Amino acid sequence: MTTEVPRGSAGVPPRPFCFIGVVHSPFLTPSGTPAQPAYAGPDAVGTVEVFEEYAAGLEDLDGFERIWVVSWFHRAGAARLRVIPYLDYEERGLFSTRAPARPNPIGISAVRLLRREGRRLHVADLDLIDGTPVLDLKPYAAAFDSYPGSGEGWLRGRKDADGRGDDRFTAGP
Amino acid sequence: MTTEVPRGSAGVPPRPFCFIGVVHSPFLTPSGTPAQPAYAGPDAVGTVEVFEEYAAGLEDLDGFERIWVVSWFHRAGAARLRVIPYLDYEERGLFSTRAPARPNPIGISAVRLLRREGRRLHVADLDLIDGTPVLDLKPYAAAFDSYPGSGEGWLRGRKDADGRGDDRFTAGP
Repeated sequence: MTTEVPRGSAGVPPRPFCFIGVVHSPFLTPSGTPAQPAYAGPDAVGTVEVFEEYAAGLEDLDGFERIWVVSWFHRAGAARLRVIPYLDYEERGLFSTRAPARPNPIGISAVRLLRREGRRLHVADLDLIDGTPVLDLKPYAAAFDSYPGSGEGWLRGRKDADGRGDDRFTAGP
Repeated sequence: MTTEVPRGSAGVPPRPFCFIGVVHSPFLTPSGTPAQPAYAGPDAVGTVEVFEEYAAGLEDLDGFERIWVVSWFHRAGAARLRVIPYLDYEERGLFSTRAPARPNPIGISAVRLLRREGRRLHVADLDLIDGTPVLDLKPYAAAFDSYPGSGEGWLRGRKDADGRGDDRFTAGP
């Protein structure tokens, strides 16, 4: 298999990305925010506002119970390759965790879609802070995304820990 | 809820992103490539090569059965807000589909991790073409990612269609 590595010497991609929307959330800081949608309580409701120029892409999304919010962790600090993740006490390789301090601080959140009101998506199970920029939205499809028995490495036995964030991955003000 | 929208007038993000690795795949073009890992056959094996400077972040990933490959669809054409997706005959809002021609052509693929050999991850259920740049890797955690009964909108009744790609979303050579 021959592979052309599509990056320049600095790893610069061929085109920049854009923000298609923004999250409005009751959580104002990483501290106390659910670490994952699975840890969200009844208070974790908010809206995803999609900017006018992308609104036409939202049609047909309503039929899905969950959607992937692909977001940019704008409050994340510098990337670290070894972290003590939420839910654990031991240092782990970053890519074996969902910690926000990543080379590209991109998050994927399977939030619950309550209803769509034009270009505003009312969602529950929100694990993102207020003002989080949105890069993409995708339908959650059980046929593609759900692997209930999938082996879960170090998370085994830790997933019932307290799933709230703190400031360990946050950049200064 | 007050929200500061963190974008300039042109939607330019505060910092650029980088590629952390590249996919080596037997699929050379979008045409014929599985549309999702769920449609991959036994031929869909390859490797994810992580660049040297990020290799330390791979530790502990081995214990997971599946991983999320967050990728950049480098062959995708210009974004379209309405598309006829793979698996369907009708035009849909882009964000209700997993089509590659997105404002940010970011993909999420839950591939099966066969083994790690240093900074090379041998994977199966690969739905990415050779040379696809990698933005991030995350563990697939059933506790966070698996919602087996989740309502699936227009995909209901279409998910057993032929799940191979073609050239409809590909940029010219």
